[in-house]
Amino acid sequence: MRNDRNVADVSELLRVGSGVDLGAIDPAGTPGLPDRKAVRRDPKGWARAELVMLGEELARQQEMLFASAKVNPADQRRVLLVLQAMDCGGKDGTVKKVAGTMNPEGLRITAFGPPTAEERRHDFLWRIRRALPLPGYLGIFNRSHYEDVLVVRVRELASPRVWKPRYEMINTFERELVDSGFSLVKVMLHISYDEQRRRLLERLRDPTKYWKYNPDDVDNRAYWPAYQQAYQDVLRRCGTDHAPWHVVPADRKWYRDWAVAHLILDALKRLDLSYPPAAFDPKSETKRLEREETGSASKMNGR
Amino acid sequence: MRNDRNVADVSELLRVGSGVDLGAIDPAGTPGLPDRKAVRRDPKGWARAELVMLGEELARQQEMLFASAKVNPADQRRVLLVLQAMDCGGKDGTVKKVAGTMNPEGLRITAFGPPTAEERRHDFLWRIRRALPLPGYLGIFNRSHYEDVLVVRVRELASPRVWKPRYEMINTFERELVDSGFSLVKVMLHISYDEQRRRLLERLRDPTKYWKYNPDDVDNRAYWPAYQQAYQDVLRRCGTDHAPWHVVPADRKWYRDWAVAHLILDALKRLDLSYPPAAFDPKSETKRLEREETGSASKMNGR
Repeated sequence: MRNDRNVADVSELLRVGSGVDLGAIDPAGTPGLPDRKAVRRDPKGWARAELVMLGEELARQQEMLFASAKVNPADQRRVLLVLQAMDCGGKDGTVKKVAGTMNPEGLRITAFGPPTAEERRHDFLWRIRRALPLPGYLGIFNRSHYEDVLVVRVRELASPRVWKPRYEMINTFERELVDSGFSLVKVMLHISYDEQRRRLLERLRDPTKYWKYNPDDVDNRAYWPAYQQAYQDVLRRCGTDHAPWHVVPADRKWYRDWAVAHLILDALKRLDLSYPPAAFDPKSETKRLEREETGSASKMNGR
Repeated sequence: MRNDRNVADVSELLRVGSGVDLGAIDPAGTPGLPDRKAVRRDPKGWARAELVMLGEELARQQEMLFASAKVNPADQRRVLLVLQAMDCGGKDGTVKKVAGTMNPEGLRITAFGPPTAEERRHDFLWRIRRALPLPGYLGIFNRSHYEDVLVVRVRELASPRVWKPRYEMINTFERELVDSGFSLVKVMLHISYDEQRRRLLERLRDPTKYWKYNPDDVDNRAYWPAYQQAYQDVLRRCGTDHAPWHVVPADRKWYRDWAVAHLILDALKRLDLSYPPAAFDPKSETKRLEREETGSASKMNGR
């Protein structure tokens, strides 16, 4: 198991801010992967094996987060993973592989599609607020409020007068979340134009993947440079100190899962969680149970 | 892998109806477990290994359910697992172990505690309706509307005039759900009075389990016979043809998980799911992607 310093290191390496140049980040890169012989020999095998261990630690941290909120209603801490990516960027795969290591009962996963008629009658953050995780939970947004400055901007679903002020509105909203106990983990899964094409072709070759294929995705490829520009603006304008963005190179799925697991684990470890102490006296409770009449069991079972 | 007939057999064996005598069902039993040498030698090891295979099939079925609803908005099918049990009955463990084999993105899990002030301002089914899974999802209720004829009746939180009509209201409600595309899998995890005591003592011995311990649970043991009676009435009065109840002996956790996996798988298989066909022409879509200019990738990546 890698130590805490490594977990924080990966997080540090992937963090981006106002100066980011998205075009300079290699979607096939593997930043933070240890430079050891065993890793170089079989990086994929190594990363997949480590994901199992990271998953066990994620599950333990998640349980402590859940337990803390359950025992202490004043504890407002919770974690929210925001996943953004181009089509085929691997959002669903990441949820399956990384969230799949945790207890599903403590997860609150929401996939945001085009807004419904009801959602369109409210401001763009309305549906987001309704999907926020309660204290103790780990929330995951598969797409998010960022679509309102990505697809909305690129496909001109609203005028600049509408979407331009949203960067600041998002920063204010996220500040409010952080102040009320949220740890935000914002992740852009970064794939290349070529990798998207490979994945689209893969979906066309496999009938069990047809349902994931949408002809619009191919039309959308013409807007690739505009999307990259819109993403870069998101990273630059909303990569704040209280809620930084991370760019995870995602052409290699095994690296992507390994890296996202690190990012969530880093956020959980920063909370310095522990199992809450007993709010009762374990000794006297044990005595109460041991004092129960022998023979009461068969009586109680009515047999 | 066991064949379909076995999956349906286990479901059949565990189903109960108007004539059920709860006291005659052994909480340590293992109905449906194959009577083979390999199983007799190590039933726990065998059941745990089979759960892995059942989990893979559950995940595949779950994906087909999700895909079907995604591709066809008129497809209203969804599955709802209703879990009820005495304290320490293993509801959380079942969710972790059985739901943990599936893709968390396709799950909608809700744990129902004592109603909040807002919930108390509405009828007892109001919060239930709000938590129902959308088409394509597998919902899990950890406790449910049945608490309103269990704890409410036993601990006299409402008068008989209030809770008595609820059995019929529940049957009508569930009929409505089934008519609108729900498959209901209602499961009582059945533990013994002694096993509850062992599990309470276990929580008192392990500081990482203190958060699950509640001194009220010991007080509640005095009401064991009244709870068993209330459960039996639920099974008898709400074990309908359209939404039958199942009693899963739950003193042995490995049997419990194995049996619940069978029950969910049986419900999914009855839907006769498949991956939806393409709503586009895979060949011409492939050509569109292959036609893309060579060299466009480096241009698009801006590098």
